Amino acid sequence: MTAYEELENRFKDLSVLYQVSTILHWDAAVTMPAGGAEARAEQMAAMAAIQHARLTDPAIGELLDQAASSDLNEWQQANLHEMRRNYTRSTSVPADLVDALSRAGSACEHTWRDAKKNDDYATVLPLLQTLVDLTRQEAAALADSLHVSPYDALLDGYEPDARIADIEPVFDAYAGFLPDVLDDILDRQTSAGAPVVPQVGFPVEKQKQLARELAETAGFDFERGRMDVSAHPFSTGYAGDRRITTGYHEDDPGFAIMAVLHETGHSIYEQNLPEKWRYQPVGQARGMQLHESQSLLVEMQACRSDAFLSYLSPKLIGAFGDDPAFAQDNLRKRYRRVARSFIRVDADEATYPIHVILRTRLERAILSGDLPLADLPGAWSDGLYELLGIRPPDDRQGCLQDIHWYSGGFGYFPTYTLGAMTAAQLFQTATAADPSIVPGLEAGDFAPLRSWLKENVHQYGSRYSTAEVLSKATGRPLDPASFQSHIRTRYLAV
Amino acid sequence: MTAYEELENRFKDLSVLYQVSTILHWDAAVTMPAGGAEARAEQMAAMAAIQHARLTDPAIGELLDQAASSDLNEWQQANLHEMRRNYTRSTSVPADLVDALSRAGSACEHTWRDAKKNDDYATVLPLLQTLVDLTRQEAAALADSLHVSPYDALLDGYEPDARIADIEPVFDAYAGFLPDVLDDILDRQTSAGAPVVPQVGFPVEKQKQLARELAETAGFDFERGRMDVSAHPFSTGYAGDRRITTGYHEDDPGFAIMAVLHETGHSIYEQNLPEKWRYQPVGQARGMQLHESQSLLVEMQACRSDAFLSYLSPKLIGAFGDDPAFAQDNLRKRYRRVARSFIRVDADEATYPIHVILRTRLERAILSGDLPLADLPGAWSDGLYELLGIRPPDDRQGCLQDIHWYSGGFGYFPTYTLGAMTAAQLFQTATAADPSIVPGLEAGDFAPLRSWLKENVHQYGSRYSTAEVLSKATGRPLDPASFQSHIRTRYLAV
Repeated sequence: MTAYEELENRFKDLSVLYQVSTILHWDAAVTMPAGGAEARAEQMAAMAAIQHARLTDPAIGELLDQAASSDLNEWQQANLHEMRRNYTRSTSVPADLVDALSRAGSACEHTWRDAKKNDDYATVLPLLQTLVDLTRQEAAALADSLHVSPYDALLDGYEPDARIADIEPVFDAYAGFLPDVLDDILDRQTSAGAPVVPQVGFPVEKQKQLARELAETAGFDFERGRMDVSAHPFSTGYAGDRRITTGYHEDDPGFAIMAVLHETGHSIYEQNLPEKWRYQPVGQARGMQLHESQSLLVEMQACRSDAFLSYLSPKLIGAFGDDPAFAQDNLRKRYRRVARSFIRVDADEATYPIHVILRTRLERAILSGDLPLADLPGAWSDGLYELLGIRPPDDRQGCLQDIHWYSGGFGYFPTYTLGAMTAAQLFQTATAADPSIVPGLEAGDFAPLRSWLKENVHQYGSRYSTAEVLSKATGRPLDPASFQSHIRTRYLAV
Repeated sequence: MTAYEELENRFKDLSVLYQVSTILHWDAAVTMPAGGAEARAEQMAAMAAIQHARLTDPAIGELLDQAASSDLNEWQQANLHEMRRNYTRSTSVPADLVDALSRAGSACEHTWRDAKKNDDYATVLPLLQTLVDLTRQEAAALADSLHVSPYDALLDGYEPDARIADIEPVFDAYAGFLPDVLDDILDRQTSAGAPVVPQVGFPVEKQKQLARELAETAGFDFERGRMDVSAHPFSTGYAGDRRITTGYHEDDPGFAIMAVLHETGHSIYEQNLPEKWRYQPVGQARGMQLHESQSLLVEMQACRSDAFLSYLSPKLIGAFGDDPAFAQDNLRKRYRRVARSFIRVDADEATYPIHVILRTRLERAILSGDLPLADLPGAWSDGLYELLGIRPPDDRQGCLQDIHWYSGGFGYFPTYTLGAMTAAQLFQTATAADPSIVPGLEAGDFAPLRSWLKENVHQYGSRYSTAEVLSKATGRPLDPASFQSHIRTRYLAV
């Protein structure tokens, strides 16, 4: 067996073990009874320890060195590159720091839940400080190995090869673009009037049926996946067994429908990854930017388009009864409501990037030490005011709203907006390249769109970087103009 | 850390990893989409390989030797004994034989499914021969280490310390007891007339509600467990997270109710195991004989008693409407129908042991080489005729009906009937010791019964052998008279 083959065997084992963790995680969120929580924590920790031990085995380092000089085809080379990336990241951080981070993250997250409920930032501050201190050590260790800045080292964990130097101008451009445009959008929205509220009821069973039908329409393969209920929508799993969840609001089917379509976007990507490489690093989905681009492309670009809303309107009437609220024009108003608001997860697509830009600026300042954590609430308020012209009335609607930092997730936020912008750029290219895509959405036929995505994005797995995928597909790197043009067209065109 | 403490750590890790396999198995049977099967097989194999490697680590052998001379309390000694048992069993069989058995078992089981469907024993015969040959090697290897006969070595894997020399006279006694009694029972049944068939329908949702309510009544803790649907009823999991399944027959709620009560019996046992030892071998349920005794004690002894049927009758009327079929007297007829029949899993409690006795005799003859596999169909037919006076019309209803042998499960069958007999002996002792148990069943209060079981069986985990548990609880070893007396009392008393 060659060194490369031996590596493929080892990484296949690892991939299978990661899948096991995936199922344990899904089960904990969807099916596990309360009494199973303690044992599940032990199980997750045991699996993580096995994975970590196998990935950091020094034999892997030696095999990687040996394989580097062997004769490999392009996919194998890319696979080796991804193996090296995983190995380097996990051997860079000392085991006791990994352990300390995991414990500090759990403790801080636990306290954060109460702090958020009680709007009491002070109680979580010391735990957040510990977590930030440890995260700085982690970032420094990773930065040393990866030869990038500490912040880039964290970013790279969510979106390989992403660099803040490339992201900052894109974000600044949007921060400069939005204010005037937002005023125009809001003016226009006011004169168009608020959407009509539906008078009919929305039995959960009917919502579920419709959501399932729409997921299938968009391309979710239920032979290789399932759909369930959980506290917050998410999707997980792998190509053969992809699992999406949503919640159902009795008074509003709009939530479940769009949540399911969003998770369907993530899942189509996973279900279309290169079959041949499914147990290898190169066969996995690229980073969070590209992953989020696939969910937002389906949800925001395709499913909130005029074409799809004209398909959705009779579906809603069929499921819940004829009601003026389901008229296509009203759906447009309803699914494209823009507002200056405090909560990121509830924000519309035009103002959502502002929330991300704020968090990106703040987390960089926190990690660099420029922003002492005691000053975070004030800096949040000032930052949001500067970007959006509003101040949160309390920390619950300010710096306590998101779980990310309190569980140790620094460097994740930018991927949301990078994903939204990538989605716009891909969708514009796709619809221009294949004129049957938009009529397809109008007829509930996603095949043309899916086929373009499979050809240009999904089939590559991690063969190329996100930037390379984008350049190959659209002829240029990430271009903030695409997303800006999308916002103008959707909200300000006739 | 002492050698014993180090062993506790290692066996806790193993226990946690076994739990993971449990969840993967449950998920495959209950929730996994078809597309997940291939990956799941890889996951199960990876987990089994990790567990096997850890359990057979020579360091464990050394630690066991060191710990043997240390100062341990009785529970620790029993724990060490169970560790040694697990270690000995898994190091006795060479890894390549384990692997060959696993592959031969999968291949044979796969072919058996078609062979059964097509009533074609000849197609599965060569694969069964391979599996039997490998099983003989396994049994010989285990027999060498355990210093018991090859058949006992297999039995011991399902019910530790069980010996065929003790079982054979018990089974022979029942085979001699039944024929005359069965004639009497059938005569009596004929003169009493057949049970009335219900005229109402049984919506699955209502069956589910009632099954859940009855499981709770019997003591299933839904905070630490759940109930789902699968092709065949089963239960799995561990104390904090116990999972039972059933199927629902639209035309008959009787099936689901008794299946759920059976699995509840298994689960109450698991939910009441000694909390302190939950991750150690000594804290696990004893063998299959005692486990099956707990399910049959709840289903057969408690829930088909006059007392419980008088509680069940109004529950059925409440759920499905007033119908003469739900009268207590009719339920007695219905839940105690006896017949000479071909299929073990559908057999009543009086004739069920005959099916087990037949299989036990045949599997011993197969393993000893006295019965060539080509002669199995004939030997089955002759054996059933000798024991029960009937001959199966085909192999589908004869030697092809059960999965056990075709998946490599030799030595398992006896535990069903040992469990039934143990249940009768425990229930007779319990009801004599606590006169509030039977009135409790009549009132839907299982607390007195559960409390006796917890005190006399559940709390011991694997602290004692099944024989010791039975002797401590009832004052004598397994006594076939208890079960015979149960059959006489239930089916032939006034």
